[in-house]
Amino acid sequence: MSFYDSAVPAYLQMLGSLSASLTKAEAYAADKKIEPATLLGTRLFPNMLPLSRQIQLACDFATKGVARLTGSEVPSIPDVETTFEELQARVARTIDYLKTYKPAQFEGGETREITFPTGPGKTTTLTGQQFLSSFSLPSFYFHVTTAHGILRMCGIDVGKHDFLGAN
Amino acid sequence: MSFYDSAVPAYLQMLGSLSASLTKAEAYAADKKIEPATLLGTRLFPNMLPLSRQIQLACDFATKGVARLTGSEVPSIPDVETTFEELQARVARTIDYLKTYKPAQFEGGETREITFPTGPGKTTTLTGQQFLSSFSLPSFYFHVTTAHGILRMCGIDVGKHDFLGAN
Repeated sequence: MSFYDSAVPAYLQMLGSLSASLTKAEAYAADKKIEPATLLGTRLFPNMLPLSRQIQLACDFATKGVARLTGSEVPSIPDVETTFEELQARVARTIDYLKTYKPAQFEGGETREITFPTGPGKTTTLTGQQFLSSFSLPSFYFHVTTAHGILRMCGIDVGKHDFLGAN
Repeated sequence: MSFYDSAVPAYLQMLGSLSASLTKAEAYAADKKIEPATLLGTRLFPNMLPLSRQIQLACDFATKGVARLTGSEVPSIPDVETTFEELQARVARTIDYLKTYKPAQFEGGETREITFPTGPGKTTTLTGQQFLSSFSLPSFYFHVTTAHGILRMCGIDVGKHDFLGAN
């Protein structure tokens, strides 16, 4: 087993299931005559981020997480997507990016120190395992689950099975 | 590093932050004259589970996850809690249970096969690492994030910082 197995398969699984749920959401919006922009702009609460941003952030936590875990250059991706098609492309690009990584790049990553930004002018240093378990994965799951919650709140027929995807 | 570090600290961190968010929720309900049972019965959507069940399920996935990862007896805990106090006690008992585990119990656990129920009359067999990454952790995060979403939807002032807790 490699530290790779603690990170990459989970990100890939959930991004795949997120994409499938978005396909259902787009069909639902068309069927119910909901403007896609309205659905993508839906929030659980007015001061929370809308569905589109939840998707972008899920992609971002996966991308930056894997880059940081391997000591790779951390990509900075502008959040410009406003349609289902563009958001699906963002998810697909994220999946493609994750698939470029090889288990060997993660060797020793669990104990290597990672310094990452945690607020304006603030950084935190953790081991790779701590970074993954206490920050990167929970943040990623936070956004994919919140996206799922918004879809559910809009009446889209996605359940825990859709959320888990691969099981 | 031990396989323990991939699992137990994450469960403990999130259960600790869930408990702190519930403390805020109870104070909020008292302040706004919301019946605790109403808040604990709130759902993101009518055919989703209420807050109380999200909390019980988060506890359950942590408890059963760690038991299965170590080949220990899997506890079966009745879902009887109906008040903040009882749910806080459930979370606290779960934390105490997780703390009884030692890293040595997880040795070799990442490659050991785990057979677990995934539906009526259905089981799935995965390696420990796959079980943790593709089923146990995402299910756990699903319920803690959904609980957080319900609290946010009710107007309780908890943010990503409260969700992550230890960071």
